[in-house]
Amino acid sequence: MQATPAYDALTRTYTRLHHLGHLQALAGWDQAAKMPPKGNAARAAALSEMAALLHRMRTDPGLADGIARAEQEALSDLQRANLREIRRDWQRANALPDSLVQRRQLAGSRCEHAWRTQRPANDWDGFLQNFREVVAVAREEAALLADCSGLSRYDALMDRFEPGMTSVELDRLFGDLRQWLPPLIVRVRERQAAQPLVLPQGPFPVEAQRRLCEQVMRLLGFDFEAGRLDVSTHPFCGGVPEDVRMTTRFAEDDFLGSLLGTVHETGHGRYEQNLPREWLGQPMAEARSMAVHESQSLSFEMQLGGHPGFVACLAPMVEQAFGAQPAFEPGNLHRLITRVKPGLIRVDADEVTYPAHVILRYEIERALVEGEIEADDIPALWDAKMMELLGLDTRGNYRDGPLQDVHWTEGGFGYFPCYSLGAMFAAQWFAAMRRQMPELDAHIAAGRLAPVFDWLRAHIWTQASRWTTDELARRASGETLNPAHFKAHLEQRYL
Amino acid sequence: MQATPAYDALTRTYTRLHHLGHLQALAGWDQAAKMPPKGNAARAAALSEMAALLHRMRTDPGLADGIARAEQEALSDLQRANLREIRRDWQRANALPDSLVQRRQLAGSRCEHAWRTQRPANDWDGFLQNFREVVAVAREEAALLADCSGLSRYDALMDRFEPGMTSVELDRLFGDLRQWLPPLIVRVRERQAAQPLVLPQGPFPVEAQRRLCEQVMRLLGFDFEAGRLDVSTHPFCGGVPEDVRMTTRFAEDDFLGSLLGTVHETGHGRYEQNLPREWLGQPMAEARSMAVHESQSLSFEMQLGGHPGFVACLAPMVEQAFGAQPAFEPGNLHRLITRVKPGLIRVDADEVTYPAHVILRYEIERALVEGEIEADDIPALWDAKMMELLGLDTRGNYRDGPLQDVHWTEGGFGYFPCYSLGAMFAAQWFAAMRRQMPELDAHIAAGRLAPVFDWLRAHIWTQASRWTTDELARRASGETLNPAHFKAHLEQRYL
Repeated sequence: MQATPAYDALTRTYTRLHHLGHLQALAGWDQAAKMPPKGNAARAAALSEMAALLHRMRTDPGLADGIARAEQEALSDLQRANLREIRRDWQRANALPDSLVQRRQLAGSRCEHAWRTQRPANDWDGFLQNFREVVAVAREEAALLADCSGLSRYDALMDRFEPGMTSVELDRLFGDLRQWLPPLIVRVRERQAAQPLVLPQGPFPVEAQRRLCEQVMRLLGFDFEAGRLDVSTHPFCGGVPEDVRMTTRFAEDDFLGSLLGTVHETGHGRYEQNLPREWLGQPMAEARSMAVHESQSLSFEMQLGGHPGFVACLAPMVEQAFGAQPAFEPGNLHRLITRVKPGLIRVDADEVTYPAHVILRYEIERALVEGEIEADDIPALWDAKMMELLGLDTRGNYRDGPLQDVHWTEGGFGYFPCYSLGAMFAAQWFAAMRRQMPELDAHIAAGRLAPVFDWLRAHIWTQASRWTTDELARRASGETLNPAHFKAHLEQRYL
Repeated sequence: MQATPAYDALTRTYTRLHHLGHLQALAGWDQAAKMPPKGNAARAAALSEMAALLHRMRTDPGLADGIARAEQEALSDLQRANLREIRRDWQRANALPDSLVQRRQLAGSRCEHAWRTQRPANDWDGFLQNFREVVAVAREEAALLADCSGLSRYDALMDRFEPGMTSVELDRLFGDLRQWLPPLIVRVRERQAAQPLVLPQGPFPVEAQRRLCEQVMRLLGFDFEAGRLDVSTHPFCGGVPEDVRMTTRFAEDDFLGSLLGTVHETGHGRYEQNLPREWLGQPMAEARSMAVHESQSLSFEMQLGGHPGFVACLAPMVEQAFGAQPAFEPGNLHRLITRVKPGLIRVDADEVTYPAHVILRYEIERALVEGEIEADDIPALWDAKMMELLGLDTRGNYRDGPLQDVHWTEGGFGYFPCYSLGAMFAAQWFAAMRRQMPELDAHIAAGRLAPVFDWLRAHIWTQASRWTTDELARRASGETLNPAHFKAHLEQRYL
């Protein structure tokens, strides 16, 4: 084996970044799940200091030379994959001048902070005052990232979340979806209108909900020796691969929200808990991308969570948690979970109408970043697209319209497509599993979930960022992203 | 006002250290209170990386020059006090070579980790295998610190916790205590043996205990908007001044342990929450020393917690928490709280026998650091001193003997005296309060604690590290540490 001193030095730097990032991730989780309100200013200052420190480490002038020298060394395939991810991380950190990074942070946190009260107040005009600067900074950032990557501006922003995905490809994928989704929604709604449905009777005590969520997380293989479940306003999966911090939220009048939200986050959590340990600390050992990450949460929430066999396993747990009710009969519980109803709020959407929310946002944010529209144009576009895609009137309701998501407030343009790409990948993974295991649905109905987890572990979790998303998909399922599986899944489940 | 560029640069460095130390403190709290077991290796690596980073910042060669130049600048009294603390912090960080810091960390964490199972197994010989290295490293450290400070070796270690305190002074203070304490214990025991005592009848549900503790913390002025109460194996007060993280532990068969432990930690917590905000981030804004810190926890736990007037305020809360019992009658509750009984375990000791535990440890650790005894000699000395001071036979019981504390496993020699110095200071603060406020005890009995907090805030909390401990004591109480107040307090309360 030849010596690889430059490569070795890079891995040491990235191990240090990983260790310090651990403290950053923990503080982020704590801020959302545990921190008392008066701690916020000190926490923000501490996190900002750490962000600056990590940025300095990533923009150390010596790194460029180190990467160039490492690329001349005799590296194994694995090392070369890691170096590819190191270069990617380095490029992203070094593409932007410090002044822009600071302006982005400032504009984003000002807009996000004001949005917290502007959203309940339905104050679109107030929001615009801050949001215009967020858009201006994002366009500058997009231009710089586009220059050094050769991508279009929007694609350059999306590349932060889903490397390799382009708007040309998205236009193809979503253009197709746009055709068949609205009529599918109509057909499903007609079919479901004829089905009997018994609603659950609350209240559902929070402690009982918490125990149920933990029981289901155990069924789903979450390792409580290497993670926790806590409560936060907006559920998320944070922490580090060695110690995954999941959150949920409880409402006494509805247990399905926390239960399915927990199933969703458990998918993220198991991906993180099963990233390859032998490479931990290196970019190659991180989750492949946000679309692949969402494909795990949606494999759990949608592919499993809406599976009639899995719901039949859940039903007795639900009954044990809250006492027997007609609504908890497995068939009825499944109808409750898979009920399709166009609504204003993305995070409350079912799996059939969800892509409409994503397409709408994608079309708006792409045009916004590319300079084809201005921030002021958003409400009119929103109203038109909601009517077109879901038949809903949203005029004047900014609160439940363009003000509903946190993503744009912080300039997170390019993230939304990952949700639907993840739903498509999830359907593709389960289609591949079924081809390889014809008895898959019988396993699930019997509560034998190990074959599902084994497949995901082998094909997704332990592969981390060893391959590009396309190559990961080819190795896992024999093809790159193919939306036909998602369409087939929805038709099979809902028609 | 003259420009003070060198001083200003130092304050910026210390603000950065404060911000990064925030993340370190949070991760330490989380490790004890929230972290799942498999997260430990990654957390240890992250904390070690951060410790190394902070150490590099503190040992930056430019700092020495900066301090020297700042000392020539025209500084205000406050700035000069801050510079004194900066120099102190810098000296401590720069006195030890990196290799020794690493060996200390390694020896300490190895010994502490093995101790967790060696203690329950009563395995003194196994403990010795690791502990000898801890002692060897501590002696090297003591020698280096002694060289650069002019202190004796033990004093140089103690100086980390209580700057300015010496073993000559401790020998005087503890030598005095050693004379009057054993006969006092005998007299108190005789007196208490004649008093009726009704024991509380458990179980005491954990949720009710938690609510009681939070209620008492509110009575004691803890700001829950700037801190939390959680559970850990060993209660402590951590976090940062802006966000204090207190912990306690609950046992269903005993509520007094968690209640008084919480009162104790609340004293630490209020000190931290009331450090001066305008200087936060600078060494001058930190708590004066560990003896002064313990003087706050013991002002709360012993001066207030054992005060008959305060106990009369507690009694109805206890009754509300667990239902009425004869044991909760105020007089009986006070007798329970102030019951004196020599025991093997320091952390369970009452305020009268507690100093015996400290004196024993001080005498052993001083001799150990100075090289007058070896680690192997500890059990025999322990047995002799426990018999002499408390009349207890500890032969062969290492578990409840020299293996009971965590301090020595990590080389924390010099800390134990702070507990009894703190008890003495607490008595001195309350004596000063009574001189200035003759109606103090009536206030306390009426549940009016604000005068106590106002006094502590003005004289201790907001003074932070502006003065040396001696000067702080003089300004607060008119004299430096005077153990007569502690003796008078015990005699007044227990005879």
